[in-house]
Amino acid sequence: MTGSSPHFEVHARDGEARLSVLTTRSGSVDLPAFMPVGTAAAVKALSPAEVREAGFDLVLANTYHLMLRPSVDVVERAGGIARFMSWHGPVLTDSGGYQVFSLASRCKVSEEGVRFQSHIDGAPLSLSPEEACTVQHRLGTDVAMALDVCPPGGAGVDEIASACSRTTRWLDRALGARREGGPLLFGIVQGGVDEARRLAHLEEVASRPVDGLALGGLSVGEDMDLTRSMVSLAAPRMDADRPRYLMGMGTPEDILHAVGSGIDLFDCVLPTRNARNGQVFTSRGRYSIKWSCWREDPDPLDPECGCPVCRTFDRRYLRHLFVAGEMLSARLLTLHNLAYYGSFMRSIRDAIRGGRFDQLRGAMLDGYAGGPGGQPDRGGAG
Amino acid sequence: MTGSSPHFEVHARDGEARLSVLTTRSGSVDLPAFMPVGTAAAVKALSPAEVREAGFDLVLANTYHLMLRPSVDVVERAGGIARFMSWHGPVLTDSGGYQVFSLASRCKVSEEGVRFQSHIDGAPLSLSPEEACTVQHRLGTDVAMALDVCPPGGAGVDEIASACSRTTRWLDRALGARREGGPLLFGIVQGGVDEARRLAHLEEVASRPVDGLALGGLSVGEDMDLTRSMVSLAAPRMDADRPRYLMGMGTPEDILHAVGSGIDLFDCVLPTRNARNGQVFTSRGRYSIKWSCWREDPDPLDPECGCPVCRTFDRRYLRHLFVAGEMLSARLLTLHNLAYYGSFMRSIRDAIRGGRFDQLRGAMLDGYAGGPGGQPDRGGAG
Repeated sequence: MTGSSPHFEVHARDGEARLSVLTTRSGSVDLPAFMPVGTAAAVKALSPAEVREAGFDLVLANTYHLMLRPSVDVVERAGGIARFMSWHGPVLTDSGGYQVFSLASRCKVSEEGVRFQSHIDGAPLSLSPEEACTVQHRLGTDVAMALDVCPPGGAGVDEIASACSRTTRWLDRALGARREGGPLLFGIVQGGVDEARRLAHLEEVASRPVDGLALGGLSVGEDMDLTRSMVSLAAPRMDADRPRYLMGMGTPEDILHAVGSGIDLFDCVLPTRNARNGQVFTSRGRYSIKWSCWREDPDPLDPECGCPVCRTFDRRYLRHLFVAGEMLSARLLTLHNLAYYGSFMRSIRDAIRGGRFDQLRGAMLDGYAGGPGGQPDRGGAG
Repeated sequence: MTGSSPHFEVHARDGEARLSVLTTRSGSVDLPAFMPVGTAAAVKALSPAEVREAGFDLVLANTYHLMLRPSVDVVERAGGIARFMSWHGPVLTDSGGYQVFSLASRCKVSEEGVRFQSHIDGAPLSLSPEEACTVQHRLGTDVAMALDVCPPGGAGVDEIASACSRTTRWLDRALGARREGGPLLFGIVQGGVDEARRLAHLEEVASRPVDGLALGGLSVGEDMDLTRSMVSLAAPRMDADRPRYLMGMGTPEDILHAVGSGIDLFDCVLPTRNARNGQVFTSRGRYSIKWSCWREDPDPLDPECGCPVCRTFDRRYLRHLFVAGEMLSARLLTLHNLAYYGSFMRSIRDAIRGGRFDQLRGAMLDGYAGGPGGQPDRGGAG
């Protein structure tokens, strides 16, 4: 038993991999965990009960989207994000920064914060480190992320350096803006794929009284080998007494690698967004339901899966739904993919508990390599 | 106890309204019943289990769509339409004629049948009365419709007359093409809103050994008062020993009126298609979830409804989902609307059994008039 705080406790270790529990005011979450992305207060196409049954205790929602629609006022007056969407459990929100940088129009960053226009109706909006805190507090989130500056994948040394130092100053302002009874606050480590910069910024963020540490600014267009080596380098050096969150990365291979480096928490649009594009995740790797080989295939999506979709429907029907443009396709593939991720994360936790994470990782990577194959479109962060 | 055949039995009468049971090889259906429309082998956005739980024992699928995609071969080899879509119950298919006339390209009608091109890929196809029978047989439907000629709402006397006589000749060819062990076959009565023509064609169709009688060619653009008076006129004169099906009409008011005239079976895209456009059906009438008055409304869609949607979600969240373009909106509104229709049809059957259909009809029409109001977009036939 190592590493303990009121909201985080490590229960077992297996190499760098950790089995732990994150406790929020809305419930506890067994880690390592994957968070399905519920951008606009909905995991697309699914009911909250289905998300729960697929094996998830914590979902992510996007502050930027909720600010724009339905507005912070509406969510706050509904009793907070979880109650608004009828989710009986904790919610983590991002700071809004990533979407401001990637989606908003006329985004202007200054030391004060970010000014931008809604991509929906052009309304002028702003987000400062303090506002990002207040907004997430008012949304009733359980875990808030501090506003950070996330430079693009090809950013130069100076841009990365200045993003790191501004992110630190913004973190201090966020910490100053915390109010009693608010959410946990996680700080974000930037630094691109520059080793020295990444480790220096990690040290700065870890020296602050944040409730968790996140690796940001990865999987934003850079070479994936560099990303992984950055995770291998940084994760084991992140404070062991706090949860470690790798933002926006989540192929099964990414997760196996990162858990093996000591990461506890993940989010990614991959299983949900790719479902809408017809991609199926299985223990034998990924494939597209579009493929004509499934035209008369009477097997479930994954013969080794026991999810409601695999218990009920076969590939020929699911291919038909996709080809015919039926929204039931998006719904059923999303449900299957999340059920796959849910059972995948459960296997990882069981393996760490049993001291056999390395065997599991090897067997899983072999399974993926032996299947129908196909690399997924990467979801990217956010 | 009046009117009985191996597949149809009338259990009670209340005025012209009848409580009856239609028995197919895949199960029995209590009538009056409404059939949700599962055009491409899916009631859009819903799982078959949800359709069943909403109170439906029989669904409609569209022959034209299935011929094009995934093809009759695929459905036949999957064991038929019900097995293909994992629906555990009977299915009625239309003949394909209505969609050929309304959707296909370069449709050419001759005495032989219809030649047309797929609206999806332009592939040349044909449908004769015999082929429509064979195709539905191969799709494994439980109730097949004979191919008919459906003239548009504004058709002249001559066009209606020639549609009627060709429909009769096609019906005889369909009856000649029936094979052992096939579905029930219903004949379709045309005649527009010309009273004499409608009754004459009814007599012709009823003189054939069809398993059910359907009123077609209504709600195709003509004045709705004329439509209703045609239903009032024709329904009570349809053979009492066979099920009576009013095709493609299905506002709650239409159904109350038609059941009161002796109709047993309905289909309409209204509760499902209009759900996707934001329209909500309730015991107090219809409204749009778009309305800004629901922006912060904490009540369920229908406070008197006990469906899974009304037990879980409120209007402010459902309005947000619709406005944000989340497909969960279409799914939840469809589920609610069908649950409303399911409980509505159950109330009608209970009232007929109890000899109080007229009271129920009066109370329901009063309820609709007292609510937030708004007329639905009519779904039209098919």
